[in-house]
Amino acid sequence: MSTFFDALPTVRFEGPDSSNPFALRYYEAQRLVLGRSMEDWLRPAVAYWHSFVGNGLDPFGAPTHGRPWFSGDAMESALNKADAAFAFLERLGMPFFCFHDRDVAPEGETLRDSNARLDQVLERVQAQMQRTGIRLLWGTANLFSHPRYMAGAATNPDPEVFAFAAGQVKHALEATHRLGGANYVLWGGREGYDTLLNTDLKREDAQLGRFLTMVVEHKHRIGFKGTILVEPKPMEPTKHQYDRDVATVYGFLARHGLLGEVKLNIEANHATLAGHSFEHEIATAAALGVLGSLDMNRGDPQNGWDTDQFPNNAQDLSLAMLEVVRAGGLGTGGMNFDAKIRRQSIAPEDLLHAHVGGIDTMARALLIAERIILDGRIDQARTERYAGWDGAFGQTVLTGGSSLEAAAEHALASGIGPRPRSGQQEWLENLAGRFAGG
Amino acid sequence: MSTFFDALPTVRFEGPDSSNPFALRYYEAQRLVLGRSMEDWLRPAVAYWHSFVGNGLDPFGAPTHGRPWFSGDAMESALNKADAAFAFLERLGMPFFCFHDRDVAPEGETLRDSNARLDQVLERVQAQMQRTGIRLLWGTANLFSHPRYMAGAATNPDPEVFAFAAGQVKHALEATHRLGGANYVLWGGREGYDTLLNTDLKREDAQLGRFLTMVVEHKHRIGFKGTILVEPKPMEPTKHQYDRDVATVYGFLARHGLLGEVKLNIEANHATLAGHSFEHEIATAAALGVLGSLDMNRGDPQNGWDTDQFPNNAQDLSLAMLEVVRAGGLGTGGMNFDAKIRRQSIAPEDLLHAHVGGIDTMARALLIAERIILDGRIDQARTERYAGWDGAFGQTVLTGGSSLEAAAEHALASGIGPRPRSGQQEWLENLAGRFAGG
Amino acid sequence: MSTFFDALPTVRFEGPDSSNPFALRYYEAQRLVLGRSMEDWLRPAVAYWHSFVGNGLDPFGAPTHGRPWFSGDAMESALNKADAAFAFLERLGMPFFCFHDRDVAPEGETLRDSNARLDQVLERVQAQMQRTGIRLLWGTANLFSHPRYMAGAATNPDPEVFAFAAGQVKHALEATHRLGGANYVLWGGREGYDTLLNTDLKREDAQLGRFLTMVVEHKHRIGFKGTILVEPKPMEPTKHQYDRDVATVYGFLARHGLLGEVKLNIEANHATLAGHSFEHEIATAAALGVLGSLDMNRGDPQNGWDTDQFPNNAQDLSLAMLEVVRAGGLGTGGMNFDAKIRRQSIAPEDLLHAHVGGIDTMARALLIAERIILDGRIDQARTERYAGWDGAFGQTVLTGGSSLEAAAEHALASGIGPRPRSGQQEWLENLAGRFAGG
Amino acid sequence: MSTFFDALPTVRFEGPDSSNPFALRYYEAQRLVLGRSMEDWLRPAVAYWHSFVGNGLDPFGAPTHGRPWFSGDAMESALNKADAAFAFLERLGMPFFCFHDRDVAPEGETLRDSNARLDQVLERVQAQMQRTGIRLLWGTANLFSHPRYMAGAATNPDPEVFAFAAGQVKHALEATHRLGGANYVLWGGREGYDTLLNTDLKREDAQLGRFLTMVVEHKHRIGFKGTILVEPKPMEPTKHQYDRDVATVYGFLARHGLLGEVKLNIEANHATLAGHSFEHEIATAAALGVLGSLDMNRGDPQNGWDTDQFPNNAQDLSLAMLEVVRAGGLGTGGMNFDAKIRRQSIAPEDLLHAHVGGIDTMARALLIAERIILDGRIDQARTERYAGWDGAFGQTVLTGGSSLEAAAEHALASGIGPRPRSGQQEWLENLAGRFAGG
Repeated sequence: MSTFFDALPTVRFEGPDSSNPFALRYYEAQRLVLGRSMEDWLRPAVAYWHSFVGNGLDPFGAPTHGRPWFSGDAMESALNKADAAFAFLERLGMPFFCFHDRDVAPEGETLRDSNARLDQVLERVQAQMQRTGIRLLWGTANLFSHPRYMAGAATNPDPEVFAFAAGQVKHALEATHRLGGANYVLWGGREGYDTLLNTDLKREDAQLGRFLTMVVEHKHRIGFKGTILVEPKPMEPTKHQYDRDVATVYGFLARHGLLGEVKLNIEANHATLAGHSFEHEIATAAALGVLGSLDMNRGDPQNGWDTDQFPNNAQDLSLAMLEVVRAGGLGTGGMNFDAKIRRQSIAPEDLLHAHVGGIDTMARALLIAERIILDGRIDQARTERYAGWDGAFGQTVLTGGSSLEAAAEHALASGIGPRPRSGQQEWLENLAGRFAGG
Repeated sequence: MSTFFDALPTVRFEGPDSSNPFALRYYEAQRLVLGRSMEDWLRPAVAYWHSFVGNGLDPFGAPTHGRPWFSGDAMESALNKADAAFAFLERLGMPFFCFHDRDVAPEGETLRDSNARLDQVLERVQAQMQRTGIRLLWGTANLFSHPRYMAGAATNPDPEVFAFAAGQVKHALEATHRLGGANYVLWGGREGYDTLLNTDLKREDAQLGRFLTMVVEHKHRIGFKGTILVEPKPMEPTKHQYDRDVATVYGFLARHGLLGEVKLNIEANHATLAGHSFEHEIATAAALGVLGSLDMNRGDPQNGWDTDQFPNNAQDLSLAMLEVVRAGGLGTGGMNFDAKIRRQSIAPEDLLHAHVGGIDTMARALLIAERIILDGRIDQARTERYAGWDGAFGQTVLTGGSSLEAAAEHALASGIGPRPRSGQQEWLENLAGRFAGG
Repeated sequence: MSTFFDALPTVRFEGPDSSNPFALRYYEAQRLVLGRSMEDWLRPAVAYWHSFVGNGLDPFGAPTHGRPWFSGDAMESALNKADAAFAFLERLGMPFFCFHDRDVAPEGETLRDSNARLDQVLERVQAQMQRTGIRLLWGTANLFSHPRYMAGAATNPDPEVFAFAAGQVKHALEATHRLGGANYVLWGGREGYDTLLNTDLKREDAQLGRFLTMVVEHKHRIGFKGTILVEPKPMEPTKHQYDRDVATVYGFLARHGLLGEVKLNIEANHATLAGHSFEHEIATAAALGVLGSLDMNRGDPQNGWDTDQFPNNAQDLSLAMLEVVRAGGLGTGGMNFDAKIRRQSIAPEDLLHAHVGGIDTMARALLIAERIILDGRIDQARTERYAGWDGAFGQTVLTGGSSLEAAAEHALASGIGPRPRSGQQEWLENLAGRFAGG
Repeated sequence: MSTFFDALPTVRFEGPDSSNPFALRYYEAQRLVLGRSMEDWLRPAVAYWHSFVGNGLDPFGAPTHGRPWFSGDAMESALNKADAAFAFLERLGMPFFCFHDRDVAPEGETLRDSNARLDQVLERVQAQMQRTGIRLLWGTANLFSHPRYMAGAATNPDPEVFAFAAGQVKHALEATHRLGGANYVLWGGREGYDTLLNTDLKREDAQLGRFLTMVVEHKHRIGFKGTILVEPKPMEPTKHQYDRDVATVYGFLARHGLLGEVKLNIEANHATLAGHSFEHEIATAAALGVLGSLDMNRGDPQNGWDTDQFPNNAQDLSLAMLEVVRAGGLGTGGMNFDAKIRRQSIAPEDLLHAHVGGIDTMARALLIAERIILDGRIDQARTERYAGWDGAFGQTVLTGGSSLEAAAEHALASGIGPRPRSGQQEWLENLAGRFAGG
């Protein structure tokens, strides 16, 4: 079974001048960047679902990607899939992977059966982890594919579904803990609505708040030290998803007393679907203290759905990477490729090309960010732009010592209005681009 | 000067069968709807800026709308504009108007001059209000047109701009109070950024939080009983505006301890630019306790900027109106037409057509919502959909008495999974549409 | 098998005041509208695929709609499906249906097998058509679901795929002819590209032109009198689809000498995905002489993919219907519901609700258009707006008798510039809305 | 007056390692790229309007960019502006500029006056051209800013406006000819509609066809050897613009017999507003034989209006440049910066930063395209992908010798279906990205 990926070469760093398409040209795990290894900054992870379960299905067409483990006895296939996955991961040489429960093992007749099946396959996964040294960045439970979740998991109008979801998450969280996962993620694909006509927003918000609270409580009960992460997305599959974007989830966490307990797993393509740049979402999360982990992919700038493509423009990505570096890195988080190969990419090596290009794009983006930081001019320009706030008036305002009346007096006293200064956007953009320029 | 609108007829209710284009066919101020007058539900208001200051300018073309008060001595013109505005408002017969400081009176050389000019014109406005009985729904300060605000008002990198804005808002808030305004609005048109490269999100958030806090404190100091409202918009003029949507502003208010003090003024076209339906934003605000007031307009579903057209599809609007009715109305808020006539609509009667069509669309939407409520089937279906949560397990969860473990046990105990139920979306949509059908 | 829809009532016209949710309130087949029956204007058709093959699958979730014919022996199920479909169609009482070859019968091992299977099931379909009097609006071949078509059908880089597609279309076209179909449709779901890096636009255009030419030639060879229709869509499943919109396909037809031979099947949701209103696409096709048939559905104004919902806002749709009426109707074309019930709509009656609401929305939109036409003011205003062109200068220009020099002389002679006139948009929108007002 | 730009340095090529922000690091006019000079490939041009007339005005705010020639006597200012413009152009060192008539000289009371004013200022421009050697890439007439054009120029319901536009275009075309312009452009900013309710699409299409035909005839009459170019844009300022995109304009030219006479000026930001990538539009125009010239800018991927920013991501742009190189260059066309500095960029040097960054981005994109071509693997993969079409069956099809029947026979004969091949998208994207990687 593992022979499926046997023909693929093992990926190695060969430097920028290599013309070997399977070589890494930028990603060098132990290279120091601003005092930390590249691997530590990026903590790159492969998504089990896209890379080993994705089959090229789309809303208008049948699967195109043949994999030996797509047919045959379900449990045997799941075990074979695990072996093949780690054979691929070994060749790729990245330190982490991520999984959904249902991608690892097939659903059984009952929740109890499903739990047992998951445990059985995870034993094999754990053995492979030990054998290879590959670690788990995060686990999660798939609360969106099965018809029972069509109207939501935690936000379902039927409390039995809530209970079922709780059972599934409890098991997946414990499994993540057992495997030494660094984080646990919740993506509420069906936590949203299709029409307001049958939806009670306030009630569903209360349900979702309770659910997440119970997850956090359980994490502490079992001693899981990883981070609980919520992954925002604005829509798709629902018409409207509750965890729209970073700012929305922040408000949700504040409302339910979960700030400090929960952080965010931000995905590039979800950011753009929500009308944000990826770097906006990262910078916002950092400013609000909820930056957790990243899903690295890209959408198509002209298509309005989640295309989940591998990143391949390092200059674009360097602005996101800059925000990560400014935030001091991702802590327990990392950079998971929530990306899939295209439907026509049916050759085994396509999967490897995709990952090699993705990791190298990330590495190059990090190197660009490093150069921006070391150069210092962009940060300096930003600091100088706000320098006026270091004065007496600014400090009084920021520390809460002023009033509208006092500020108005300050303005009236000068007699004339403030004089605008250039925002220097073109120069700053040139500068940022320059470090991507070779 | 007021002769400009003299040729326009006075608008009266004539019932659905009237073929008089200037007649109201649905809006009957004192008609009772679910126990309250139409006027009380809608509290309709005319936007001084669009209706009396708008000139047809667009990014590719010069003004097309001639008004006598667009030229001549600035202060004399402002006084004439006020007279003309009230001549129009009288003919239209709506109870409210809204204003920005700089649309009422021209900016002076200094803040002190500008304040004095505003006061002088507002005296004339106040006289017209007394003469006509027309009231002020809300006032606001224009903190976005002048170059000094190009990099933000409260979020400006220069604290002198912050101070200037404070002086302007203090004066506009006090003027609003003096005129008996029911609310005071802040729209942060320039509170956002054009590039993250020169922007410190955390610092600007702190500035904005301080500013709004100072406004709230000043409101209490001067005894203003109206509501302070923030108006969300996702972008335009900035690349990214901080007050993106209801959920984002909710999080901001929570962060700065302003929940309970500040509500939201939700605009239809801003909602759609942010990727939401208007009814989503209203329902969200109601669920979160921050529903304040509405800006009634519509965007173009194929264009990506703020087209600010008058509403004209009552069935569409009925879903928004339904959420207002469910929320028990808007309190001190109302429904302001933040809408403008098209650039080619250069005849004086075009302005009247626009308002008559808009108010009648709102009135008909309210009547549709009334029929939905009285029929009861939609609300009943929604209630039944969540009925399972009234059981013991659901109540334990919602009141905080459950845990992930207990819920998992509940799910495991049943042995089989929950069975999905139809969401009945097509039937509910048919039902809602039926009440718009004549 | 046909018992699946047995519990559904037979749909009848009961007039606007009926509160029976399964009654037609506006669609009265023989009601005369502007001298033609409603049925003749609308020629409504049910889409075999969405209504009888759709299963609630989406990119994030498994099927939710159970139908007895979704399992069991493939050919037996296909025959049962045909019986059930006509049982539904009888209850609904619409005159037409549409089909794809692969939705009627399963694909076989070879093209020859597939053809034989299709023929066998179509015999059953034909018997049902004779029994019920229900007719075929159009047939088509599914050239997008099978992996062989992943890189296109006619535009595939492999000519063997082109040949296979030709074989499939030949068979489907002949079957459509045999069943008395009024049109034959081609939708090029995979005729587009995912990346320009592997795509030769010019060559693929040549292939597509040849393919369509061969279809037209074959139509004449077999004596098919129906219309060949191309269905535009801008994207999805491909990143970019060649038949983007009406104007694009018009250019394609002109380039390949196919104007006069081929018309367009315009879909509402495809129009909006392409950045057009539905009425724009209809009016454009009418102006260019290529208006053929319509796919009636709607997209979600906030989502960026093909949601294919049933139409339910008659006022919105009345503007599209107005263009159809102005064009004198659709000729051999009709109005096919290319619409599907939502994933949560799992009850059998949901399917009936959807169609009843859809047909009534169309009927009411037609009645609104009738009122607009009979009132005459909108058409009159439009005629008057262009009246100047009836003068000598205008006629000389339009008939090709003028030159830039002569026109410039005309302008210079007057000495002053032309004076703009109001476009009267608000009044016209009010008027159009008024006829939707009950 | 020309002292405004006096403090700016003269821009020179200093190579990739220069840290001088005003140095060119990639653009070296005479460097040979694939056998032609960089300057010949790019033919870069500065847009007179954005660079010397733009003032920072936006729909929500007043001008921010002070220029000495924005006030004072209109004609004197226009002359001063011309001097300043050429002072800037000299410092920048680009070979071309482009202009609109009304940006060069102010409109007069009558068309005759306006023409005279334009001639007078163009005399100064011509003198500056002779002095500096800077050439005119194209001229155009502004048919969108003045209120007379609010309902269109050629498509205006009033034929007097058509005549006025003819007079203006005749004059601008002759002026362009006199100045040795390489092309003449028509952008129909107001050739579209705001509402279909007052619009006759067919009639307006006829008017527009006549207008363009008259322009082409006049070009020949006066012996202008440059190319007539139409510039597509989908919307803004109108709700819907007729010249939507390349494919739409192609159809228009075909319909009016203008293929061979007219080519296209494609703008990046217009392409993305229309839902296309820039490279798609270029490749389409090349395939259809209508590739003329380019407007180099970029839009914001999250904003829905024309932001007209300077290009700054060479990897992105390299895909567009690759299509230009494949098409053999732009002939008489060139690459005009239809780009403007941001509203906050109020310092004189911001304008220079913008152009330096833009030209260098273009140069680097060209160098990336060169490397892609020289490497050859991408082109080779594409050629191999279609190799099957070189066989007997493929050639028979492409040369018109086949039929649906014959092709079907071909498919049936083989008995089994074609086998899909990988599209290799990830590998090709990696390859393309690699050449941008330094």
